[in-house]
Amino acid sequence: MSSYETDAVVSATVHTKLDTLFRRNRIRVKELLEAGVKLDGQTVNVKGWGKTLREAGAGAFAFLELNDGSTFSGVQVVITRESTEGFEAAIESGGVGASFSVVGTVVKSPAKGQEIEIKATKVHVYGGVPDSATYPMSKKRHTLEHLRTHAHLRPRSNIHGAAMRVRNAMAFATHEFFNTRGFLYIHTPIITESDCEGAGEMFSVSTLLSKHPDGKLPTTTEGKIDFTKDFFDRPSFLSVSGQLNVETHCCALSDVYTFGPTFRAENSNTSRHLAEFWMVEPEIAFADLTDNINLAEDYLKFCVQYALDNCKEDVEFFNKTVEKGLIERLQATVGSPFERISYTDAVNLLLEPAHLKKGKFQVKPVWGTDLGSEHERYLTEVVYKKPVVIFNYPKDFKSFYMRLNDDGKTVAACDILVPNVGEIIGGSQREERLDVLEKMIIEKGANPEDYKWYADLRKYGTVPHAGFGLGFERLVRFVTGIENIRDVIPFPRWPGNAAF
Amino acid sequence: MSSYETDAVVSATVHTKLDTLFRRNRIRVKELLEAGVKLDGQTVNVKGWGKTLREAGAGAFAFLELNDGSTFSGVQVVITRESTEGFEAAIESGGVGASFSVVGTVVKSPAKGQEIEIKATKVHVYGGVPDSATYPMSKKRHTLEHLRTHAHLRPRSNIHGAAMRVRNAMAFATHEFFNTRGFLYIHTPIITESDCEGAGEMFSVSTLLSKHPDGKLPTTTEGKIDFTKDFFDRPSFLSVSGQLNVETHCCALSDVYTFGPTFRAENSNTSRHLAEFWMVEPEIAFADLTDNINLAEDYLKFCVQYALDNCKEDVEFFNKTVEKGLIERLQATVGSPFERISYTDAVNLLLEPAHLKKGKFQVKPVWGTDLGSEHERYLTEVVYKKPVVIFNYPKDFKSFYMRLNDDGKTVAACDILVPNVGEIIGGSQREERLDVLEKMIIEKGANPEDYKWYADLRKYGTVPHAGFGLGFERLVRFVTGIENIRDVIPFPRWPGNAAF
Repeated sequence: MSSYETDAVVSATVHTKLDTLFRRNRIRVKELLEAGVKLDGQTVNVKGWGKTLREAGAGAFAFLELNDGSTFSGVQVVITRESTEGFEAAIESGGVGASFSVVGTVVKSPAKGQEIEIKATKVHVYGGVPDSATYPMSKKRHTLEHLRTHAHLRPRSNIHGAAMRVRNAMAFATHEFFNTRGFLYIHTPIITESDCEGAGEMFSVSTLLSKHPDGKLPTTTEGKIDFTKDFFDRPSFLSVSGQLNVETHCCALSDVYTFGPTFRAENSNTSRHLAEFWMVEPEIAFADLTDNINLAEDYLKFCVQYALDNCKEDVEFFNKTVEKGLIERLQATVGSPFERISYTDAVNLLLEPAHLKKGKFQVKPVWGTDLGSEHERYLTEVVYKKPVVIFNYPKDFKSFYMRLNDDGKTVAACDILVPNVGEIIGGSQREERLDVLEKMIIEKGANPEDYKWYADLRKYGTVPHAGFGLGFERLVRFVTGIENIRDVIPFPRWPGNAAF
Repeated sequence: MSSYETDAVVSATVHTKLDTLFRRNRIRVKELLEAGVKLDGQTVNVKGWGKTLREAGAGAFAFLELNDGSTFSGVQVVITRESTEGFEAAIESGGVGASFSVVGTVVKSPAKGQEIEIKATKVHVYGGVPDSATYPMSKKRHTLEHLRTHAHLRPRSNIHGAAMRVRNAMAFATHEFFNTRGFLYIHTPIITESDCEGAGEMFSVSTLLSKHPDGKLPTTTEGKIDFTKDFFDRPSFLSVSGQLNVETHCCALSDVYTFGPTFRAENSNTSRHLAEFWMVEPEIAFADLTDNINLAEDYLKFCVQYALDNCKEDVEFFNKTVEKGLIERLQATVGSPFERISYTDAVNLLLEPAHLKKGKFQVKPVWGTDLGSEHERYLTEVVYKKPVVIFNYPKDFKSFYMRLNDDGKTVAACDILVPNVGEIIGGSQREERLDVLEKMIIEKGANPEDYKWYADLRKYGTVPHAGFGLGFERLVRFVTGIENIRDVIPFPRWPGNAAF
């Protein structure tokens, strides 16, 4: 049918994983490099994009590095004017960024740093790059800022490709971890009338704007927007967390988790915040704060080990170019227990004269107020040099749903802090006592009527339960060493930017 | 710490899968029933909710059926006034819907239909049900409508619990399928300025409504809403599909997929539509329509087989109570190749007098117009009695991004229809030729400026590629036999409803 079908030479030996129907007409670069010299002498068909194209021998031959995104490295293809069909077109394609199908023989490579290369008998150009000099992903080094403004092309860059492979691995590790342990994945709603935190700024979801492009929305007799004219008949928003919703399924199915996008309409134009980000939120029944912390530590270690085992090349790249010492840091994370310290002990520790002096805090920690990012980073990066769990926070700056401890002053909440990122997980045992919950809702100034359904979980067959939320982009930052959160998500959204 | 910790008697033999840290202080009902008589004589601690509580022997003992959501069945617990600590409290708890921790000995059951039961030495009530008669999930049979209005409690019903376990299995099967085949999971954005279809009605995402509760939005000098005052500086929406975005990563990383929520602001108050639903969208490079159809068939069969293998009890329940013949239908799905027929052949077939007579169509099929739901159901349910792939549709009612066939009239698109659901998958080979794509964008009345980034994928190193979208809720409906789409998602959203 189309030209590329004629290239369908398949090296069947490495296609063991494939099902009966979906037969790819190519071998992935990853499979090729992993098989290495085992494929010596075999004919293969590789397809991908040019990373470099270097002519040599006074135009008699050329080296084409081909990558298909399946792994960090490319494979070197040798094309010659004499014995490679399509040599001219390949040279004229522009090379970098152009797309190719290569048929050739696998041979041992004489060059350093690669076991094999391909001696091409045929090369087909799917698409060239018209003007190499203006190609936004040209061979030269680009700034992360430049890549961000070309988010549709940046998957072709080394760093974004590697970040996306690690992100994929962390997502799969998440599902693998929870599935193996018998958790059920629950899709909590994105559009909601509820406000989980009673705090975070939320985006409205509406059809009124497109219906009233003149900006004059229908109003009630009291002069307020008339939401009965809107799609959901009431004000509705993008969810800031799936927690309250996933609790409903926890209180029936015991061990559950949600993993989906969440939203904050905060005007934070920083390298740490996104308007749209993904969260992993497990919720476990018949469990207390210690169970919750144990689960969180297990889960984090599982993910880090998974990256070390399955993203070797990408992690090595990050270790070399983004954060020296990354691999060491990741190995240390899985190698020893997380430090666990109560909020009260943490504050007292920070107030010790030696730490006050060494920490040079802009704000002195005070019992009863939240720890600042400077305190958190100091604890995890300077004092303990490993992940730190802080638990039993004062109730005053924590949410209504957190279980009140017997001291009447603190709640069974926990934060997990990690070097380089700071807070990566926040969780708590949930208040399972109906009367205490109702009191806390009122104490926090929320409307009990809004949480009637949530209270029902305590009214009928209540159980002790707990859960946490992990900022998925923070996990990817932690594992890659990438500083800016905008560089670990395919299409970042921040104030003023929802492009693409 | 809390009372339930004292119950922590663990049957260590069945906890082989657990990691070092997160030790559950209970055995799941699923594990217990699977281990069966192997646990005979062992002490276990089971925790869950009462499904039934039946007193017998003139109040001397009682049967408590306990379920924790890990599987469809409950385990029978025998409590006696004489030898079970906490007997009185258990009786007074209300039973159905109350939550318990049971410590006891596993014994062979004299009763029919169960291998084992538990002779309880101790029972602890976490939470009772205050007034059994008004408990919304009381023992009597409830309508699906009643369950929907109690979406926070319906996970406790047999049908919703089973649906959620199957939904979880289908989500995991999806990740398993694509991960095993080397696909990368890409999180495409939810908030977007783009409109994938150029058609579907979209929800606006805005912070203007909460900033201007009086309904008077800021306007430009032309009298239009001034979106420079909104969060993203431009009109922004909830995505209707991740396809265009995921293509950017396909055109660099080759084999990718997205799986996330998508939105339609259509005023469809039917059992077939949701305002918020989940879609699975793979996108494959160096592939044509046939590769795409092969992938779709493989994927669907994998999911169905996964449900048959991993959700046996739940599928048997649906087979018995929701759709007689469900298991047979699922087995037939995996047992033979899908039928493949071109759109033109399908229309000609439907126009044959015998079929016109048998089909009793309200609208006669006409070449050049889309097939109606009645034609699709007739093909898959009456003519072929199995999944049917229809391909090469007229370009006039298909999207601009679908590859134009050589006849100049049809595009390389495909729909997959399945019995009971109708269309479950829609896909196409994408137009990879820049000039043809640009012509189609204009022909469809879209603004080329809006799709400049999308066209860039063709300008620089274009490759043949293809992909499809599967409506995830339709898959769950297909596998469970559940009719109403509102019953296969935790919190359904439709016009007038974003409750919870």
